[in-house]
Amino acid sequence: MTRDTFDATTVKPSHWNLSSVIEQLRVSREATHNIRHHGRVRELPSREALTTIVNGLQAVLFPTHYGRPNLTDESIDFFVGDTLNTTLNRLAEQVRRGLQFSAEEAIPDEEALTRQAHDITRQFAAGLPQIRALLVSDVQAAFSGDPAATSVAEIMLCYPGTIAILYYRLAHSLHSLGSPFLARLISDIAHSLTGIDIHPAAQIGASFFIDHGTGVVIGETAIIGQRVRLYQHVTLGAKRFPADEQGVLIKGVPRHPIVEDDVVIYAGATILGRITIGAGSTIGGNVWLTQGVPPGSNVAQAQMRND
Amino acid sequence: MTRDTFDATTVKPSHWNLSSVIEQLRVSREATHNIRHHGRVRELPSREALTTIVNGLQAVLFPTHYGRPNLTDESIDFFVGDTLNTTLNRLAEQVRRGLQFSAEEAIPDEEALTRQAHDITRQFAAGLPQIRALLVSDVQAAFSGDPAATSVAEIMLCYPGTIAILYYRLAHSLHSLGSPFLARLISDIAHSLTGIDIHPAAQIGASFFIDHGTGVVIGETAIIGQRVRLYQHVTLGAKRFPADEQGVLIKGVPRHPIVEDDVVIYAGATILGRITIGAGSTIGGNVWLTQGVPPGSNVAQAQMRND
Amino acid sequence: MTRDTFDATTVKPSHWNLSSVIEQLRVSREATHNIRHHGRVRELPSREALTTIVNGLQAVLFPTHYGRPNLTDESIDFFVGDTLNTTLNRLAEQVRRGLQFSAEEAIPDEEALTRQAHDITRQFAAGLPQIRALLVSDVQAAFSGDPAATSVAEIMLCYPGTIAILYYRLAHSLHSLGSPFLARLISDIAHSLTGIDIHPAAQIGASFFIDHGTGVVIGETAIIGQRVRLYQHVTLGAKRFPADEQGVLIKGVPRHPIVEDDVVIYAGATILGRITIGAGSTIGGNVWLTQGVPPGSNVAQAQMRND
Amino acid sequence: MTRDTFDATTVKPSHWNLSSVIEQLRVSREATHNIRHHGRVRELPSREALTTIVNGLQAVLFPTHYGRPNLTDESIDFFVGDTLNTTLNRLAEQVRRGLQFSAEEAIPDEEALTRQAHDITRQFAAGLPQIRALLVSDVQAAFSGDPAATSVAEIMLCYPGTIAILYYRLAHSLHSLGSPFLARLISDIAHSLTGIDIHPAAQIGASFFIDHGTGVVIGETAIIGQRVRLYQHVTLGAKRFPADEQGVLIKGVPRHPIVEDDVVIYAGATILGRITIGAGSTIGGNVWLTQGVPPGSNVAQAQMRND
Amino acid sequence: MTRDTFDATTVKPSHWNLSSVIEQLRVSREATHNIRHHGRVRELPSREALTTIVNGLQAVLFPTHYGRPNLTDESIDFFVGDTLNTTLNRLAEQVRRGLQFSAEEAIPDEEALTRQAHDITRQFAAGLPQIRALLVSDVQAAFSGDPAATSVAEIMLCYPGTIAILYYRLAHSLHSLGSPFLARLISDIAHSLTGIDIHPAAQIGASFFIDHGTGVVIGETAIIGQRVRLYQHVTLGAKRFPADEQGVLIKGVPRHPIVEDDVVIYAGATILGRITIGAGSTIGGNVWLTQGVPPGSNVAQAQMRND
Amino acid sequence: MTRDTFDATTVKPSHWNLSSVIEQLRVSREATHNIRHHGRVRELPSREALTTIVNGLQAVLFPTHYGRPNLTDESIDFFVGDTLNTTLNRLAEQVRRGLQFSAEEAIPDEEALTRQAHDITRQFAAGLPQIRALLVSDVQAAFSGDPAATSVAEIMLCYPGTIAILYYRLAHSLHSLGSPFLARLISDIAHSLTGIDIHPAAQIGASFFIDHGTGVVIGETAIIGQRVRLYQHVTLGAKRFPADEQGVLIKGVPRHPIVEDDVVIYAGATILGRITIGAGSTIGGNVWLTQGVPPGSNVAQAQMRND
Repeated sequence: MTRDTFDATTVKPSHWNLSSVIEQLRVSREATHNIRHHGRVRELPSREALTTIVNGLQAVLFPTHYGRPNLTDESIDFFVGDTLNTTLNRLAEQVRRGLQFSAEEAIPDEEALTRQAHDITRQFAAGLPQIRALLVSDVQAAFSGDPAATSVAEIMLCYPGTIAILYYRLAHSLHSLGSPFLARLISDIAHSLTGIDIHPAAQIGASFFIDHGTGVVIGETAIIGQRVRLYQHVTLGAKRFPADEQGVLIKGVPRHPIVEDDVVIYAGATILGRITIGAGSTIGGNVWLTQGVPPGSNVAQAQMRND
Repeated sequence: MTRDTFDATTVKPSHWNLSSVIEQLRVSREATHNIRHHGRVRELPSREALTTIVNGLQAVLFPTHYGRPNLTDESIDFFVGDTLNTTLNRLAEQVRRGLQFSAEEAIPDEEALTRQAHDITRQFAAGLPQIRALLVSDVQAAFSGDPAATSVAEIMLCYPGTIAILYYRLAHSLHSLGSPFLARLISDIAHSLTGIDIHPAAQIGASFFIDHGTGVVIGETAIIGQRVRLYQHVTLGAKRFPADEQGVLIKGVPRHPIVEDDVVIYAGATILGRITIGAGSTIGGNVWLTQGVPPGSNVAQAQMRND
Repeated sequence: MTRDTFDATTVKPSHWNLSSVIEQLRVSREATHNIRHHGRVRELPSREALTTIVNGLQAVLFPTHYGRPNLTDESIDFFVGDTLNTTLNRLAEQVRRGLQFSAEEAIPDEEALTRQAHDITRQFAAGLPQIRALLVSDVQAAFSGDPAATSVAEIMLCYPGTIAILYYRLAHSLHSLGSPFLARLISDIAHSLTGIDIHPAAQIGASFFIDHGTGVVIGETAIIGQRVRLYQHVTLGAKRFPADEQGVLIKGVPRHPIVEDDVVIYAGATILGRITIGAGSTIGGNVWLTQGVPPGSNVAQAQMRND
Repeated sequence: MTRDTFDATTVKPSHWNLSSVIEQLRVSREATHNIRHHGRVRELPSREALTTIVNGLQAVLFPTHYGRPNLTDESIDFFVGDTLNTTLNRLAEQVRRGLQFSAEEAIPDEEALTRQAHDITRQFAAGLPQIRALLVSDVQAAFSGDPAATSVAEIMLCYPGTIAILYYRLAHSLHSLGSPFLARLISDIAHSLTGIDIHPAAQIGASFFIDHGTGVVIGETAIIGQRVRLYQHVTLGAKRFPADEQGVLIKGVPRHPIVEDDVVIYAGATILGRITIGAGSTIGGNVWLTQGVPPGSNVAQAQMRND
Repeated sequence: MTRDTFDATTVKPSHWNLSSVIEQLRVSREATHNIRHHGRVRELPSREALTTIVNGLQAVLFPTHYGRPNLTDESIDFFVGDTLNTTLNRLAEQVRRGLQFSAEEAIPDEEALTRQAHDITRQFAAGLPQIRALLVSDVQAAFSGDPAATSVAEIMLCYPGTIAILYYRLAHSLHSLGSPFLARLISDIAHSLTGIDIHPAAQIGASFFIDHGTGVVIGETAIIGQRVRLYQHVTLGAKRFPADEQGVLIKGVPRHPIVEDDVVIYAGATILGRITIGAGSTIGGNVWLTQGVPPGSNVAQAQMRND
Repeated sequence: MTRDTFDATTVKPSHWNLSSVIEQLRVSREATHNIRHHGRVRELPSREALTTIVNGLQAVLFPTHYGRPNLTDESIDFFVGDTLNTTLNRLAEQVRRGLQFSAEEAIPDEEALTRQAHDITRQFAAGLPQIRALLVSDVQAAFSGDPAATSVAEIMLCYPGTIAILYYRLAHSLHSLGSPFLARLISDIAHSLTGIDIHPAAQIGASFFIDHGTGVVIGETAIIGQRVRLYQHVTLGAKRFPADEQGVLIKGVPRHPIVEDDVVIYAGATILGRITIGAGSTIGGNVWLTQGVPPGSNVAQAQMRND
């Protein structure tokens, strides 16, 4: 279908008092409501570039599903190699930009920054085969965990959980290698695409499956074992935030749940605080849980009232 | 040839050990973590193509709302006709691709597949007027069900529920005609756009209205009557998944609720299992419900605790 | 990564019975299921144009975060000025279109409409510095309210709540100036991007922070004080909809909660009706609340059942 | 907002003395070298829009060659109709803009201008079938006049002369209907594409063929009969320009050649002034001709010198 | 610089008598001026696809000049391999389409056509290294033949002759392998870009250099030796076209000049007919030559007249 | 009009012997036909970037003709300022790249190169008002020199000569400031757009007018006075190229004509060598001239032969 270009401007241009508005915005920006970093100018990482980069990594990891149709035996490695090279060059630049924001105070000189960005990128590349192995375990968990799933291809293409976990595993690797800002940006792109919000610092074992997924939140210090299954609206959050004597929040303290192996958490459950959900437990839908449960527990919501 | 676009690469290219990473990825792909289908190469349906197709169908169904501005009496049918033709040609190709994944074992020969894709597409086209009638009933239900709605145009353009239902009704038609993979892909696109996840196999009657909608999940075997109204975070899910003796999930068993005519389900309610919500019932917010209720019921959550 | 263009049409064109389908669609459109406004043709506002407009406004308000990299002292005001001018011209046209839909009955003549659109746009521009001040307070609230936040840049780029509030404050200004349709469209774009659904007519004070945010719904007549913090899945909704004697919903009646200053509402809480949450209260996760609570309250969900 | 695309800017931004340059440019623009029309602001026609319009007209006239592949009997008229409608709407707008520049002194009011633009466009549309007939005669002349031509398709797709004549015939129609500025713009687009420069006011009969064509110039008042064939570098130009007593050129005086039916003019011939090349004549390569020749003439260059 | 999108349609849509025009166009198309091939529908090769293909081949042949900046030793072959594979797949499809037009009468069945297209494409690929060798000789001839040339990079990027010869050598290879239509289309693209028109069937030896080049025409049966240099406006054309008894042109007869090794032909010379320019000759500017000259000749134009 | 995307690949992928071709290309590239510069890797200037840059400069110089429609008094300087800033940043990067190719032997270090690029760019910016003055004189010369010209707008939009001179004056400025490679690239872009080839090192006075223009060539050392008028196919070229004792061409020697003030040169004239065309002379069409003529001369071609 053809759409005409969108910004037909039939309204004639007018006088907008541009000078006055711009003057006030400058005052707001530079004086009254200045939020700009006071130091040398730092280029921000680009959301669009990261989207392209993650698309490239998807294609590198699963060329027949996310790459190009009809790759042949003689051509597939050329495709993977060229895509990987392009993608790593782009990534190194974004890592470099992000590094400027990771260390708040002392930014190393440009050359050291670039070297560091290259080292991180090279290590990230070296870890891709291992990430692929984890992702295959996740896809297989989805296939065996959802009776509605009819093929691996369906899980690769139609499950938001697959996308969320894929972005998470890439972001987690960057986070671990020392590129936290970039990692957060990647997780926010996944959040926007899927409604699933996984902090890249969270630790998640193999064979992880999120079904439907909208509204899932997994916090910064959460630890999740192997073969865990979550449904939509599940929150693994913090109960309270420790603050110092001035009331300033202390960052980085463990404050999210530990979920052991083989746990299933149904839709809408809210689990808060540094508590442990024992291995093999099942947490029912809409449950609000702030205390740990032993392995093999079966927790369900209080009964409803039927008027 | 590919030219890069937006992402300025100020970081100089580096040595990434490409050969080593690519070698390991090949081993992962072909040996250790091979998830590729073992048969002839099958082109996957394209998410981008389907987005274009659904945009085309929207324009065909509601040319003044989703088509092109300022269509006139002498031109509207040319627009509808040309858009429909283009869209059906594209759809037929995607249906063909999808068919290869529907039947896991024996794929018919290429020519039979193409013929089948054309038949499905032709029947789908024939059903469009009926789909339009249903969608008009849905829009009218929104207008009369939401006091914040000010015009039909607002419902067509600003309500995620409208988009989710439109995608669902198109996907359901394709599912019914034998193109389940494509149907799933369409429903996942709607999910990403709206946060509303309706399985295309679900059966939903006329005058259906979802308000706000983020987090709504409607499962594969759910059946919904006429004039039903849902709010955000409502789950119509499965309680448990029957497995066979080897522990493999049995697919296709009815396991989601039946919601009869004129039911209203408020935000956050989770309704699980093959239970029936009787006609005219009201289910309150955040309720967790695993047993059926008779017609005219009024179910609310247990009381909160006020410390 | 290079993707080949997506709609390769290997399936040969077929006979689709176009004439018959088009004929039936025309009958549906013009007779049996006609939902078109009966008056003069009115161009709809364009979602794409509004996205471009909001991007432009973001760049005008925060040029170093959302504008162009590497703006210098001598160039920044040229950028802001040119972007603002372009954006206001586009906005005036969309406001003009939207005005046709705000007043259902009597649309003023074209010239009056254009003049009105210009007036609204000019007033909107004049209010931008004040909107910027509010947004800075919101960003600071996020920084001090989330222990996981590491920099202002992270909050500007990686927090869906930031985007949702930014869109809301722009939409609310347009709503207040008499452009409700446009305001709704902007809020729906934010909803699609973030999963957060704030009606533009809601009133929200400074230093507002939504964490994670997916599934948050804030209704049309809600009133929120200063320094309020919400988490994901929080609903500030209506309990019931007053109808007139014919059963037609009465529009515009206050029916959503009032949340006073310094309230925190945790994930999944559903608060319905024109009730007041007193200042300084804390509402726990998953609570379903339909009655007001006094200042300083601490409301939590009923206990779960542990089988 | 505009985002940069392809041009990586590794050079850091610098201080360009923007204010000074901009100030001087303003002085040049408004005072010392002011070439702006002194009257109300007039939007210029858009070269890009005209390119789109001509592409649309090509598709309308020859849908299987310039339109869309694989049009079927049931779909072709929908395509032609929709493309024609879109194209005429675009054309009417460009005609309206162009009209402001055709009449230098008194521009009619906006409404009269719009009405006039619509009348011209409607008449232009009515003439399209006749233009198609002429173009088919031209294509057939190419096929029978060039031994290297192997198919009609080759002539439609690979001959710059075909494009130049097609653009000319469309431009000539617009010129005749009172839209000379637009006509000139179209002829300049063709000139840029093909190196062939035909003034839209020239009159050219059926079955016209230009082979190779680069460097052909046909002046404003040239008249060309039927079945004429030109090769590259042929000029049909003016010898001198009559001026009035103040030395100002008199515009519109016939000053270019008349070429009668069945004339062939070989590469590089320069024919100047209001002279007549009699029917059936052959003009040799590189000839410089400023006097008319009778029918049946055979003119060749003076002999070369061989040192 | 930002340009607003171009087709703002401020002119309201009008009544264009679409039905009447479309009806007349159909009659012209199907009856009175029908130029369509009478046989099965054949997709035309695509000019846009060929432009992409030639860009790809340029990148494959000279990756550092026409490919991607900053290719490294470890990445260059991945780039070349992936670009070559993509380009050959695209080329095979265009060759297939073109083959339908090469043989006017009997088109082989689809499968044979595809097989033939693959064979041609595979042979074409095998010839690329040899084409590269020729092109390097051409570039070196330009560098040593033009005192204004300052570097190889300048010749690769700024000389239209380089582009024209590159396109010619690719087109000539396709022509020789049996894909004449495609070859012609490629040569016409080069013609449009450079003003240089070389028929792909012409035979041209190594170290060929065209300076400036606009208006150069080299005919179908021309034969050019090694180390030949041409300037702008040089025509190597046919003098007359032999026709059969019915007056139909006989196609394929040798009718263009033979230019032996080490000849220089200056600007504007027109050389017509199957004549031989002996090795080492110099032909002066604007000469019109229809008889052969022995080796070592020095031909100049007759003297000018100075009034 | 909608065109489907162009590279539908209905032909199945095949085996292309990629490895063999790639291997041979590598050998050709690195050994047998290596034309790569032997030194550090140097990024080439980008033709696309330069096109964008020239578009930006056009908009800066003539914002109402080449910029954005409907600029107002309050907005025009914001537009000019922002466009100029963006364009200069882009230009500085391209100048930097080009500098690497200007000095063949010793490239200064990166920082010196960047500084030099900024200096050139800053001086270039400072010269823009003067360039504008010259261009206005050129436009006025066209208006008074062509009886077919109807308005300044027509000359700005529809005359290839205007574009060619505009590109030339910008390129000449860059050439003079020490950026010859970039200057050549700009002149080649103009050549491709207009068929007019002006070497950026040529010196051309004010009020210069080229009518039609296809095939005009003006050589590197040509000097043209004020108020000169040229027509299509005029060559101001070199007669012979002085070589040193090894036969290597000596670069930079004056070898093109000097054309004094108020000269008119008609279509197809070829003027070669370092000769002087005296002020006020008229050179007729197709003349081949290798000796200077005194002021006020009137040179015409020898008579034709009429068989």
